[in-house]
Amino acid sequence: MNMEFIDGGICAPHGFSAAAVHCGFRADVAKNDLALIVSDEMCSAAAVYTTNKVKGAPVAVNKKHLADGQAKAVICNSGNANTCAPGGKEVAEKTCELVAKQLGCSSNDVVVASTGVIGMEFTIDPFVAGVPAAAEILDYNGCEEAEEAIMTTDTVKKIVAVKFELGGKTCVIGGMAKGSGMIHPNMATMLAFITSDVAISPEMLQKALSADVVDSFNQLSVDGDTSTNDMCLVMANGLAGNTAINSDGKDFDTFCEALNTVTSYIVEHMAADGEGASKLIVCEVINAETKDEARKISRTVVSSNLTKAAIFGRDANWGRVVAAVGYTEGDFDISNIDVTLSSECGSIEVCKGTKMADYSEEEATDILTEDAINILVNMNTGDQGAKAWGCDLTYDYVTINSDYRS
Amino acid sequence: MNMEFIDGGICAPHGFSAAAVHCGFRADVAKNDLALIVSDEMCSAAAVYTTNKVKGAPVAVNKKHLADGQAKAVICNSGNANTCAPGGKEVAEKTCELVAKQLGCSSNDVVVASTGVIGMEFTIDPFVAGVPAAAEILDYNGCEEAEEAIMTTDTVKKIVAVKFELGGKTCVIGGMAKGSGMIHPNMATMLAFITSDVAISPEMLQKALSADVVDSFNQLSVDGDTSTNDMCLVMANGLAGNTAINSDGKDFDTFCEALNTVTSYIVEHMAADGEGASKLIVCEVINAETKDEARKISRTVVSSNLTKAAIFGRDANWGRVVAAVGYTEGDFDISNIDVTLSSECGSIEVCKGTKMADYSEEEATDILTEDAINILVNMNTGDQGAKAWGCDLTYDYVTINSDYRS
Repeated sequence: MNMEFIDGGICAPHGFSAAAVHCGFRADVAKNDLALIVSDEMCSAAAVYTTNKVKGAPVAVNKKHLADGQAKAVICNSGNANTCAPGGKEVAEKTCELVAKQLGCSSNDVVVASTGVIGMEFTIDPFVAGVPAAAEILDYNGCEEAEEAIMTTDTVKKIVAVKFELGGKTCVIGGMAKGSGMIHPNMATMLAFITSDVAISPEMLQKALSADVVDSFNQLSVDGDTSTNDMCLVMANGLAGNTAINSDGKDFDTFCEALNTVTSYIVEHMAADGEGASKLIVCEVINAETKDEARKISRTVVSSNLTKAAIFGRDANWGRVVAAVGYTEGDFDISNIDVTLSSECGSIEVCKGTKMADYSEEEATDILTEDAINILVNMNTGDQGAKAWGCDLTYDYVTINSDYRS
Repeated sequence: MNMEFIDGGICAPHGFSAAAVHCGFRADVAKNDLALIVSDEMCSAAAVYTTNKVKGAPVAVNKKHLADGQAKAVICNSGNANTCAPGGKEVAEKTCELVAKQLGCSSNDVVVASTGVIGMEFTIDPFVAGVPAAAEILDYNGCEEAEEAIMTTDTVKKIVAVKFELGGKTCVIGGMAKGSGMIHPNMATMLAFITSDVAISPEMLQKALSADVVDSFNQLSVDGDTSTNDMCLVMANGLAGNTAINSDGKDFDTFCEALNTVTSYIVEHMAADGEGASKLIVCEVINAETKDEARKISRTVVSSNLTKAAIFGRDANWGRVVAAVGYTEGDFDISNIDVTLSSECGSIEVCKGTKMADYSEEEATDILTEDAINILVNMNTGDQGAKAWGCDLTYDYVTINSDYRS
């Protein structure tokens, strides 16, 4: 399939504009804290949410608003998570009403999101001036500003867009996301907004997204903590003019492949920008008996504090990798595991048949000096594989998280 | 029940001696690395082991040796875990044979343990001179030396003994343990050796131990990593002269209570001495619907990296506690949770009904300045409770684990 990365993020597909303003959630007035994303046309919309039983107020509101599979706009603030806040659900509803009034749509077609500290008071006040101000400056090149406004401890922007062909029409999927800490499978503290000009039914859009997250967002871990506010939203407005995707088939497969290119990019960049991270860690499990086993093992390896700290220290301590494989939930054979570490600088087998391989520690340390480390785990028991994304555990992670609120 | 803490650790019960020597696993000859514990009489013996599928060679050997419920001695080295080492099982068997030869018993009555780095070559050589040398200097006051020899990243000794009455006889249970990192439920990288002069059948001893670990060792987490080598062993030689415990009843209950005093002491001191820890964190869950739910919630809270980092930073970030409760596996009501933080310096309710309570951040910070922090989570849904032990996440944890092998 012919797919090309292009600029523009969520504003790259036809008909999407965005804007950002400072409305008062953050003390620093130079830092925007409110983002608005709008589609010119009504969109098919699909979403997945955190599995945490403690949910931010926006989650319940969005589930209601997206029940009809349609949306036109997203409003998102940073600096306060609207979680465990008295009256938070009412404020989230009112926020949607403010946006609807500006855009002349139903509040039921507005999606709302919040990220930041849990448990703080949350009021409508900042939105009253903020929403009209943002609507005023909506821009078809507004992705960068919108992304900056929703970032918390993120250090780099996560913006991506891909262009591809669908039934002779040029289509685009764009994405932007925030998320750096409190990231663990079944949605991280992570908000991902994905836009597209593809014509697709809400049902097929949800099917594509739900299938995708199993091997993308749900295979990402920064610190083992699952957030209360996570959401991945996809909106598709149909302006590309393709024959609408209403069932399985070639067009649907093409759309799924493009979607996965966008989500994989976001996941990899979120892992690399994990709180305090100095290295991206990708664990790829191959030749496992089942796909589910491969997913679980790779996730457990990138979630192991001891493995993460060893990688930070450029220590090829493969025993910790094997130990993490061993404590992965499930019943499987661990008697013939090979482990290979690799990076741009080379590749080295450190464990063969669950025993130490004959390798040079110096060479291994050199490989681990790079910024992106791949841990390949060969289970030698079947033909199924999966990947997971994580990062190292550093002094900076402790710094960031021992003093986040002040 | 009248129970008194006494000195002597594993040598406090009648008939137990111990010794330690340097045999060569560690480069520093001033640091002993081999401990021997011997009972004058044959003991009833019971053990629990790591649930990691990757197991150190000693685990398989011990399961075989303890199948008859009897043991007389324990040999334990530090500096090398004998895990994923070629021929490790044969070396573990030979080690037991060396001990048996010295003591004039069957190698089947010897328990073997190893702790240290995974995956290094492991040979019988250090034991050949080490075992006779240790046997030569067995001492009825040898607990301190034996404990020092098995410590790895531990910074304090974990030694305890309690004296109590059983059917008119004075009985003692003693314990020593190592364990600081790679500690997570279902046995940590932790070795605990518990001795007693109580007369009790192997079956009842195993029953007491298996019931105990559910609320002691399995509720302890330092870093979420479950080790390959964990073991808790209890040996009881009957020298106290009590009527042997062969069934349930008052004497068995008394024994279990004394055992729990010993294991609770060990668990609390292991958590407080977690790698790099500056604070002990105990999470107590009350008024949950089921005991199992209370256990899981308390374990999840003390395992949360974000909560651990917040406590290190003296940040009363109760939202992270509530988020951890929320992502605990299981289906339960989170709508009316109260959270209280306390220490020697006072107590403060920070969350009421899953919303922020009206409290002073300054007062909360003062409470979190102490070394031992209690997090009380009231679920308000039932009458079941449980406790879990953990520690904060610090710069020193990263230091220790990014450079453990060098």
